[in-house]
Amino acid sequence: MSRHSSVVLEPSTVLEHPEAPLTAADPTSVEISLRWGDVDSYGHVNNCEIVRIIEEARMRWLMASGAFEGETAVVAAHEIGYLRPLQYSLEPVNVEVWTSNIRRSSFEFNFRILDDSRRVSVKAVSRMVMFDLATQESYRIGPRLRKHLDESCGARL
Amino acid sequence: MSRHSSVVLEPSTVLEHPEAPLTAADPTSVEISLRWGDVDSYGHVNNCEIVRIIEEARMRWLMASGAFEGETAVVAAHEIGYLRPLQYSLEPVNVEVWTSNIRRSSFEFNFRILDDSRRVSVKAVSRMVMFDLATQESYRIGPRLRKHLDESCGARL
Amino acid sequence: MSRHSSVVLEPSTVLEHPEAPLTAADPTSVEISLRWGDVDSYGHVNNCEIVRIIEEARMRWLMASGAFEGETAVVAAHEIGYLRPLQYSLEPVNVEVWTSNIRRSSFEFNFRILDDSRRVSVKAVSRMVMFDLATQESYRIGPRLRKHLDESCGARL
Amino acid sequence: MSRHSSVVLEPSTVLEHPEAPLTAADPTSVEISLRWGDVDSYGHVNNCEIVRIIEEARMRWLMASGAFEGETAVVAAHEIGYLRPLQYSLEPVNVEVWTSNIRRSSFEFNFRILDDSRRVSVKAVSRMVMFDLATQESYRIGPRLRKHLDESCGARL
Repeated sequence: MSRHSSVVLEPSTVLEHPEAPLTAADPTSVEISLRWGDVDSYGHVNNCEIVRIIEEARMRWLMASGAFEGETAVVAAHEIGYLRPLQYSLEPVNVEVWTSNIRRSSFEFNFRILDDSRRVSVKAVSRMVMFDLATQESYRIGPRLRKHLDESCGARL
Repeated sequence: MSRHSSVVLEPSTVLEHPEAPLTAADPTSVEISLRWGDVDSYGHVNNCEIVRIIEEARMRWLMASGAFEGETAVVAAHEIGYLRPLQYSLEPVNVEVWTSNIRRSSFEFNFRILDDSRRVSVKAVSRMVMFDLATQESYRIGPRLRKHLDESCGARL
Repeated sequence: MSRHSSVVLEPSTVLEHPEAPLTAADPTSVEISLRWGDVDSYGHVNNCEIVRIIEEARMRWLMASGAFEGETAVVAAHEIGYLRPLQYSLEPVNVEVWTSNIRRSSFEFNFRILDDSRRVSVKAVSRMVMFDLATQESYRIGPRLRKHLDESCGARL
Repeated sequence: MSRHSSVVLEPSTVLEHPEAPLTAADPTSVEISLRWGDVDSYGHVNNCEIVRIIEEARMRWLMASGAFEGETAVVAAHEIGYLRPLQYSLEPVNVEVWTSNIRRSSFEFNFRILDDSRRVSVKAVSRMVMFDLATQESYRIGPRLRKHLDESCGARL
């Protein structure tokens, strides 16, 4: 997306080493239920619905803590690697969530979606920006949320 | 997603230089209609629906040529930079589409979504892999599709 | 949904007489673009996405007139008959739209979705209620919108 | 949708008597997780996503039994009454499911979605038709599935 972004997500790398050890000290695992309608005509959970699933994981991660009450954050960027097709199942998938690169008004979420055999199906990083819907401007991360983000901060995927 | 992917999509860069000149020699513009339901409770076209919109742009780009008949390709990776919130409008958005880094069985799509003031709202790169649904394995890009991809090949976003 | 609602949408009827003449004096046709992602793993436009398509048709019908500016209406009820599977195509579908049973604060939309062979794929009736999002209460249809609704009023499907 | 379908879902009726006693002898309750993205710009779970939620409830109800293995059924008709706006919550909603009017190759699902205060938010009836995707024709309900449907058969909503 800039000269810094060249050669990101080399498929040869992400596809060959999907089992790379998780770098975050202590990721939180969020269970997300799949829906039959997430599956597209290719028979896999559609790539757009994967983005919906990581959205749901980060909302639940944020809301469960209470530290996001009254806050609003928008997505500035996604990087998503689809390592293995994900099948619909009655069992929820586990989404590991941790943070990285916490700045003044933005931070990153890191995600790993594990299928029901505990293999990594998807890896993703989402950069979030605190965003005031009234003024349509970014704002500084407040102390309560920052503390919560700091506590789960680890290495970027 | 790997050591190659650190510091991608620096918001300071993508947000400050959204008007960077388009690098592709000759992008094709695909019109995609928005839907009122694409908008989330923040009042913007939701980031997941943006992924749906670039999916639709690439399917139309592929199908319009006839060169994708009988082919199937899945998404191996997305990088998406959300530069400006996109509002719902009755007018379709324009999605500029071009290819890059065409390999044996994979290639990249580059996208720029322009809002109704012709400003860049979203930039994205999607790596596609030709994927046989019966064998669940990748396969080599055929000559007809390769020719079509080559003709629109430009610089990566 | 009540004793009034027994034996609605007898499939034997709707499936046998899909070509019943359109009862509205003058339906407006709204073009809605399909998306590849509307298709589910059965290979048809999914029944939920059909509901999205009629939502889009009624929003466009309402917004195009200007008479809906500042108004908000919610769906009180849908009745939808799926007569023929709808396939994805690059061409938009035509959705015929007209109103019926206009009351104090509610009215009905009638829809017929025509496929690219001009056959009726879906018939639907949606009862809308004017709904104030601040007070969470219904409100009387204003004179400008009422005039617009009256002008397209016809027989209920 | 036919002369039999006039004046269905009178809002005056469904809105005034939402607490009508459940008519089915023994509805099964299926828990469905909401997603933040189900909410539209009006701040409620969108009416189309409600259809997705009942789709998920019926798929889980069918798949949990094992009696649907190898079967395919499509929606012939929906009737849906939206009684109260549904809010997003971390807790799943409960969807009561039972069958009615089981015929040769079709049957009805009845649904009631209860919010977290156990109030009925949505009532719906969906007519399903067994549908062979290869021949694109309806087929007779098999003995195993019929037994399962019979066991939960109750009064139509």
